[in-house]
Amino acid sequence: MKIILKDGSVKEYAGEMSVYDIAGDISEGLARVACTAELDGQIVDLRTMVSEGEHTLTILTFDAEEGKSAYRHTASHILAQAVKRLYPEAKLAIGPAIKDGFYYDFDMDSLDRAALDGIEKEMKKIIKEGARIERFTLPRKEAVDFMQKKEEPYKIELIEDLPEGEEISFYQQGDFVDLCAGPHLMSTKGVKAIKLISSSGAYWRGSEKNKSLTRIYGTAFHKKEDLNAHLEHLEDIKKRDHNRLGREMKLFTTSDIVGQGLPLMMPKGARILQILQRWIEDEESKRGYVLTKTPYMAKSDLFKLSGHWDHYKEGMFIIGDSEKEEDLLALRPMTCPFQFSIYNAEAHSYKDLPIRYNETSTLFRNESSGEMHGLIRVRQFTLSEGHIVCTPEQLEQEFRDTISLIKYIMTTLDIEKDITYRFSKWDPNNTEKYINEPEAWENSQNRMKEILDKLEIPYTEAEDEAAFYGPKLDLQFVNVHGKEDTIITIQIDFALGKRLNMLYTDAGGEKKNPWVIHRSSIGCYERTLAMLIEKYMGMFPTWLCPEQVRILPISEKYADYAGKVRDELLEHDIRAEADYRSEKIGYKIREARLGRIPYLLIVGQEEEENNTVALRSRYKGDEGSRKLSDFIAEIREEIRTKQIRKAETV
Amino acid sequence: MKIILKDGSVKEYAGEMSVYDIAGDISEGLARVACTAELDGQIVDLRTMVSEGEHTLTILTFDAEEGKSAYRHTASHILAQAVKRLYPEAKLAIGPAIKDGFYYDFDMDSLDRAALDGIEKEMKKIIKEGARIERFTLPRKEAVDFMQKKEEPYKIELIEDLPEGEEISFYQQGDFVDLCAGPHLMSTKGVKAIKLISSSGAYWRGSEKNKSLTRIYGTAFHKKEDLNAHLEHLEDIKKRDHNRLGREMKLFTTSDIVGQGLPLMMPKGARILQILQRWIEDEESKRGYVLTKTPYMAKSDLFKLSGHWDHYKEGMFIIGDSEKEEDLLALRPMTCPFQFSIYNAEAHSYKDLPIRYNETSTLFRNESSGEMHGLIRVRQFTLSEGHIVCTPEQLEQEFRDTISLIKYIMTTLDIEKDITYRFSKWDPNNTEKYINEPEAWENSQNRMKEILDKLEIPYTEAEDEAAFYGPKLDLQFVNVHGKEDTIITIQIDFALGKRLNMLYTDAGGEKKNPWVIHRSSIGCYERTLAMLIEKYMGMFPTWLCPEQVRILPISEKYADYAGKVRDELLEHDIRAEADYRSEKIGYKIREARLGRIPYLLIVGQEEEENNTVALRSRYKGDEGSRKLSDFIAEIREEIRTKQIRKAETV
Repeated sequence: MKIILKDGSVKEYAGEMSVYDIAGDISEGLARVACTAELDGQIVDLRTMVSEGEHTLTILTFDAEEGKSAYRHTASHILAQAVKRLYPEAKLAIGPAIKDGFYYDFDMDSLDRAALDGIEKEMKKIIKEGARIERFTLPRKEAVDFMQKKEEPYKIELIEDLPEGEEISFYQQGDFVDLCAGPHLMSTKGVKAIKLISSSGAYWRGSEKNKSLTRIYGTAFHKKEDLNAHLEHLEDIKKRDHNRLGREMKLFTTSDIVGQGLPLMMPKGARILQILQRWIEDEESKRGYVLTKTPYMAKSDLFKLSGHWDHYKEGMFIIGDSEKEEDLLALRPMTCPFQFSIYNAEAHSYKDLPIRYNETSTLFRNESSGEMHGLIRVRQFTLSEGHIVCTPEQLEQEFRDTISLIKYIMTTLDIEKDITYRFSKWDPNNTEKYINEPEAWENSQNRMKEILDKLEIPYTEAEDEAAFYGPKLDLQFVNVHGKEDTIITIQIDFALGKRLNMLYTDAGGEKKNPWVIHRSSIGCYERTLAMLIEKYMGMFPTWLCPEQVRILPISEKYADYAGKVRDELLEHDIRAEADYRSEKIGYKIREARLGRIPYLLIVGQEEEENNTVALRSRYKGDEGSRKLSDFIAEIREEIRTKQIRKAETV
Repeated sequence: MKIILKDGSVKEYAGEMSVYDIAGDISEGLARVACTAELDGQIVDLRTMVSEGEHTLTILTFDAEEGKSAYRHTASHILAQAVKRLYPEAKLAIGPAIKDGFYYDFDMDSLDRAALDGIEKEMKKIIKEGARIERFTLPRKEAVDFMQKKEEPYKIELIEDLPEGEEISFYQQGDFVDLCAGPHLMSTKGVKAIKLISSSGAYWRGSEKNKSLTRIYGTAFHKKEDLNAHLEHLEDIKKRDHNRLGREMKLFTTSDIVGQGLPLMMPKGARILQILQRWIEDEESKRGYVLTKTPYMAKSDLFKLSGHWDHYKEGMFIIGDSEKEEDLLALRPMTCPFQFSIYNAEAHSYKDLPIRYNETSTLFRNESSGEMHGLIRVRQFTLSEGHIVCTPEQLEQEFRDTISLIKYIMTTLDIEKDITYRFSKWDPNNTEKYINEPEAWENSQNRMKEILDKLEIPYTEAEDEAAFYGPKLDLQFVNVHGKEDTIITIQIDFALGKRLNMLYTDAGGEKKNPWVIHRSSIGCYERTLAMLIEKYMGMFPTWLCPEQVRILPISEKYADYAGKVRDELLEHDIRAEADYRSEKIGYKIREARLGRIPYLLIVGQEEEENNTVALRSRYKGDEGSRKLSDFIAEIREEIRTKQIRKAETV
C-alpha cells in the first residue's frame, strides 16, 4: 500500500491499516490531534481501513473546517451522553456540528442556565473519563430493534427514512450509543475546551406542525484560549445586537398590544431617522431627483394592473371584508404604481427624460411572525425609494449614477466594506412568481450583466431572487447573528411601464414605453439604522448623534453658564443638552458615557471666567480646555463633513 | 287700524288693507321694491291682509336678508316656469332660495351650458311678460287632485307630508302654478337681474336611496351691477379653488384607480409639504418637543384600550377578514395611544414632566364618499400631531404655550385673520359618542373655559363637537365655497391617561395619572396647503415656493452664464431652475409667470460681462439690474425671515 501525503512524501505499508494508525506512524503528536482525514478526496473517519493500492491522504486537525466539524460533532455526542445521564427520560433527536459550535435537540422540558451548567459539568466528567469511541453497523431491522429497546422514537424515524442500501452506523462511548454517520474523534478525551451557550425551543425537523423540542447550543475548541476568545466574541455580539442595544439606548421600543413587527421609534431613534432622511432627500435633490408623496393604500384595481395582486398578494395587507374584490383596498408593498400614476398625470416627450422620482415612502408587508426581527424585518418600514423613468439609451448612465449615489452613501456611513453584491435573476420554472416573458427576461438580465461587468462590480449570481418584473442587484449585509439580509436594491424593469401604459413620445413622434429603474439609495431606514447600531455599537458618528454635546456644570453655581453654553451651541445647530441635576460630576460623566454622547463639556469657575470649556470626548478622553468658540468651530466642521472620528485611546 | 312703522311714525287706516297697499300708501317707490314685510314680528307675504287693531310693520326690500330670500324665491319660480315651458315633461321637486342665490330641482335629464342659456333666455321673457303673482289655498284633498292633474308626483308627496291643519298654499304666475308657502313678490317683473350659474345632480330629499334629480343653480340681484360684482366674485372663487388651482399648478393629482380621497402629491406639492414639515419639526424642537415615529397600524387590542374601537370604529379602516376581533389590525385615526405607549416604555417622575411629544404623523379616516373634497377632506393625511403629558399644575402654562406656538405659525403664514375659534363641548345625552364621566367633563370643560377666558380668546361655543375623551378648542377656517372646516385643534384629555395606565410619581412618591393636551400646530398639512393655495391664489411666499427663481438666458449664447447663475443660487440653498430652451424670451417670461415663480432673472451679454442679473419679480414687475451677489443676499434674507412680500403693482 502506497500513501501519498499532502507534502508529496510517500509512505509504504504492508497490508491494510486504519487512517488513525497511519497518522500515528507519521507522528504520535499528529495522531493525538487528528480529527478526520481526506482519503482519495473523500472525508473519512479515522477508523477507516485503508486498502491495498495507491492513495492520497491528508490528516485533518481542528485547524481544518472538516476537522472542526468532527471535533464538535463529538462534543455534541458528549452533550447527549451527559443529558441522558442526568435526564434519562430525555429522548434524542439530532445533534450536528454547526458554524462556530454544535447543538443537540432533545425531547425534554426546557432548561435554565443552572441546568446547562450542571450538564456542562457532567460533560467535563465524561471527557475526563476518556472513553474510547467505537463505531459499528447494523442491518436496518436490527438497527430499528436496537433503538426500540432504547426507547428512542426519533432515532427510529431517522433510520426508517434512510434510503435502502445505506449503511447504518452507530458510535458508542462507554454506556452511550448514538445513530450517526460520523466521522468522530477516537476518544472523548480528544475534546479539550467546551462551553454550553444557550438553550431554546426548536421544532422536530424544523416544522411548526411537529413537536417542540429543547435545543442546547454549545461550542468546543481545541485550545482554552480560542474558546475564551470566541466567548468574548459572543459577548461582543450581545453588546452590538441592535435589538438589545437599540432598546437599551432608548432608540426604539415595541409593545405587545401594538403588535409584532411594528416597532415604535422613541425620540432618540426618531431623531436619527430624521437626520438620515433629510440628508438623503437633500442629496437626491442635488442629483436631480424630484420628490413625491403618494398614498399608502389604493384600490385592488391598481395592484391588479401593476401585477402585485397576482404576484405578491400574500405579502400584502388587505383592508375591508367585502366579498367583491373591487371594493377592497390594500396597503402598498411598493410605491412603483403610485409614482407611475404621477408620471401618467402628464404627457411626456423624450426631452423630459430621464425623470428621477424619489419618495421617503412608507411600505407595508405582511411578514410571517417567525420572520420578524427587531428593526431588520418589520411589517411597516420607510424606504428611500426611487424610480427613474428613462429611454433605453439612458439606462446605462442612470444605472451608473445610481451606483455612484449608493457608493457615496455607503462611504459616508463607512459601511462600503461590509456589503457584498448579489445579481438576482429569475427562475424560468417559477411561473407563479414572475411575469412570464422569457425573452424580455433574457434581454434585461443580459443588459444588467453587461452594465455590472463594465462597472467591475464584484457580484455573485443568485437564481430565483429577482423581483417579479425584472432582475435586481442586491446589496447584502450580514448582521451580528450571521444572518444575511438585503439592504439596498437596484432593479431594471421591462414590464411595468407597459402594464401601466406609461408612454413618451420619441424623437420620431412615436409613442413608446420607457424603461424604469427601481432603486433605493440608503435602503430601508429602520434596517439601515439596525446595521449602523451594530456597526458602531451605538457610538454613532457625531453628525448622526441625537445628542452631540452634553454640558455638565460642576456645581449648581455654574448652571447659568452651562445654560449660556447650551444656547450658543443650539444657535449653531448643534444638538446639546445640559445636565443641571445636583449629582456628583463623576456620576454625571459616567451616565453621559453610557448614553454614548460624543462630547462632554465640563464647566466651572475657570471656564465661566474665560469663556472656555473643559472637553472630554468619546474618542480621546480628556481633550483639555479650549475657547467655546473654537470648540464650536471644530464640531461644526466635523458635522459638516460628516467625519467619522475614530477612538484614539480605549 | 293703527300701523306703527320702523321709524316710529304712525299710520291709521279705516278697515282691512293688504301689506302691499300700505307700502304703496307710504310711497309708490317703496311698493315697487318691497319684497316681503315683518308684521308684528312675523315675516309675511305682501298679500297678507292686515286686520283691525294696532300693528308694527316694516316693509323689507332686497337690502334685508328676508327680502333677498323672497326675491330669489320668486326667481326660482320663474326658473321653474321657464323649464316647464321648454321641457314640459320635467317634473318639479323643490326650489328654495339659498345663500347668494337659489336653486330648483327637476326630474329631468342633465343640462349643458347651452341648455342653461336657453332657459335663462326664457326666464328673461317671463320677467318681461310681467305676469301678476297670485296666491290661493286649497283643502288637502283638492290640492292633491290638483297636482295629480298636473302630473307632479313630487309635489303630491310634499303635500301628503304636510302636517294636518297646515294651510296649503299655491302661487300662480300666468300658466304656471307651484305649491309654495311664500312669500313672493307681486309680479315676475319685480325680478331685475338674473343668472343661471350651473347644474348638477342632487338626490330627492338629499338621500342616496332616492332618485337622482337635476339641480339648477342661479342667482338674482336687484341691480345689474350687483349681479356683475357677484359673478366676478364667483370667477375669483374658481381661480382660488385649491381643487382646481392645485391641479393646474401640478401640486397634486388624483387617480380613479388609486381611489377617492387619496390624492397623490406631485413634485411641486410634495416639496411645499417638505418645507412646511421641516419648519414645524424644527420650530417644535426649539420649543422643547421630542420627536417620535410610531406605526400606522396596531392590533384591535390597542384601540379597544384607548376607546377608539368603541367610539370611533366606523371611522377606521380595519385590516383582515378574521372572525376573531383579536386577530384584526386597524389603521390609526390618531397617534395618541402610540405616543402614550412610548411614554409607558419608561418610568417617569414629576421631574420629567412636561414631556412634549410631536410626530409628523400619517392618519387614516374612512370618510364617506360624499364628504371627500380635494386636499381638505381625505382618507389619508399628515398631521403635525403632538401630545403634552403634564401635571395638573402645568396644564395652563402648556396650553398657553401651545396657543403661542399656533399664533406664531398663523402669523408667519399670514392666516391669523382668517381663523375663528370654537370651544367644542360634549353632549351629555350622546352617550354613544363620549366617555360617560359627567363630573370629569364638567371639570375639564370648566378648566378649559377658564384658560380661554384668561387668554382672552374670542371663541364661540359648540355643543356635541368635543373629542370622545375631552373638550376641544377648534380653529376654524372657511374655504372658497363657504364651507367651514377645522384646521387646528387643542384638546384637554382627562380620560386616556387613566385608560392607558399612564403614570408618574409625584413629589410625595405617589403614582398619579397625568393630564394630556392633544394638539396640532399647523394642522393637517394637506388641508393647510389647500387653505394656503386659496389664500395666496397659488402665489406662495417666496420661502414656500418649490421654484423660487427661474433664470432665462435671452439666447443660447448665454446658457453657460445662466448655468453659472443657477449653480451659485443652488449653492446658497435657493431653489432655482434655468430655462435653456430656444424659445422667445417673451414666451419664457409668460410661462414662468403662469408657474407663479416669484423671481425671474433675465441674462444676456451685459449681465454676463458685469456678473449682474436683470430682475423681474411677481411683486413689482421689472426691478432693474443688480449684482448677482446683491440679489442672492436680498432673497436669502427674504427666505430666512419668511417675509411675505406684497405685490406693489397689479
